Amino acid sequence: MNKLTIIKIGGNVIDDPKSLDLFLADFAKRTEPTILVHGGGKIATQIGNQLGIEARMVDGRRITDAETLDLVTMVYGGLVNKKIVAQLQANGINAIGLTGADGNSMLAKKRPVKEIDYGFVGDVVPEGVNINLLVSLLNQGIRPVFCALTHDGQGNMLNTNADTIASVLAVALSKSFDVELVYCFEQPGVLSDFESKTVIPVLDPDNYHEYKNSGIINSGMIPKLDNAFDALNAGVGQVRIIHFSSLNNNQSGTIIQL
Amino acid sequence: MNKLTIIKIGGNVIDDPKSLDLFLADFAKRTEPTILVHGGGKIATQIGNQLGIEARMVDGRRITDAETLDLVTMVYGGLVNKKIVAQLQANGINAIGLTGADGNSMLAKKRPVKEIDYGFVGDVVPEGVNINLLVSLLNQGIRPVFCALTHDGQGNMLNTNADTIASVLAVALSKSFDVELVYCFEQPGVLSDFESKTVIPVLDPDNYHEYKNSGIINSGMIPKLDNAFDALNAGVGQVRIIHFSSLNNNQSGTIIQL
Repeated sequence: MNKLTIIKIGGNVIDDPKSLDLFLADFAKRTEPTILVHGGGKIATQIGNQLGIEARMVDGRRITDAETLDLVTMVYGGLVNKKIVAQLQANGINAIGLTGADGNSMLAKKRPVKEIDYGFVGDVVPEGVNINLLVSLLNQGIRPVFCALTHDGQGNMLNTNADTIASVLAVALSKSFDVELVYCFEQPGVLSDFESKTVIPVLDPDNYHEYKNSGIINSGMIPKLDNAFDALNAGVGQVRIIHFSSLNNNQSGTIIQL
Repeated sequence: MNKLTIIKIGGNVIDDPKSLDLFLADFAKRTEPTILVHGGGKIATQIGNQLGIEARMVDGRRITDAETLDLVTMVYGGLVNKKIVAQLQANGINAIGLTGADGNSMLAKKRPVKEIDYGFVGDVVPEGVNINLLVSLLNQGIRPVFCALTHDGQGNMLNTNADTIASVLAVALSKSFDVELVYCFEQPGVLSDFESKTVIPVLDPDNYHEYKNSGIINSGMIPKLDNAFDALNAGVGQVRIIHFSSLNNNQSGTIIQL
């Protein structure tokens, strides 16, 4: 099978134009088929403040009411996504920006209301990925660039976690490609010591369990790592968590393996 | 050659959710290959006002400085485009939203500064259209939905007139398809009498010249009609100007012919 790399870039990198430019230049040096997934960054909150749309967070997650949905659709799907796509075009990469609605590339389900009503938030599964479209684009040398938006097939956009979009794409496409999933963020990898920036080079289910139990791996990293192990269990070839400046250094960061 | 219809929908329809829903339902009833091009409507100005971005117009054209470019990239490329795409998906149409940067679908040149500096405004020609990508999407049963944004290949998005995008697409694709270009707006066609809404059923270069000289066709309509005649001269099969509620009525509106 051909190799495919799915790279997720976090919001903190999006927020800093210099970091983003450096990352996109590295991204453009890669020649194999690649899909980019990007978070939104703080700019949605900033523009929301200017528009009088208050960010409502529960357990670190944004509650997406109708006006917040419009806000993130504008900012993630318009401003951020198109800036990245235009910059990649300038770097010689034929990128195409996608929300899940575009080409029905990722169909989601609105999250059911339980204790918390998250609003217009989408939960995604590999079965919702339009594999044919993505394979067709990749075969034409085009690089899909996903933002953190999906749709419900009933006319509503849905705000969707970018880490999850990346892992769901990785699982869905592992039927057609040998997929590597790479999470890029502002740390050099998963850290065993935050002060000294000591990177855990390899995480497997056993030492992950120990690091969690001892509290060394913190709560912000756990959903990302749970996603990573889920992806491996579902057929993804390799998962790495790296600093955004180390995209083309295969020795860097943390490798997650079974 | 296969038939292809390129339909441009104006900003006034975008501004009215009920009109837009009706139009999109009609659009979804069509079965042949179709591309939709949409204007932006007043919502960019409204959101700009809330964000303290003043609309600067010269001769009815918006001056696009850097912050206005961000505004229209958000609103046209994000909010408006994705609402249309999600609604079409709900209507059973596999739409894909595109700016000119996406898949390098329409490369433009930043308008040179002469008496007026229009800022980040793009001028487009048929040679800038990525025909291969559009043919590939259409062959997969996907309907491209263009907003009024292109790019310069150097990392900048460019604000671009939607009427012109539609006619340039029509000309470029007339090499591969028998193209009909349809402009939908809030009047029943090109009018000879505004009060009685009397439609001119057919416009050719001769009677167009007379209507212009007599002042019956007004200045707002002239660029649209000049575009239409240019498109016919460059190989487009037919151009029609119709009311947005008459999309599937072949007898309505004004036919432009050579």
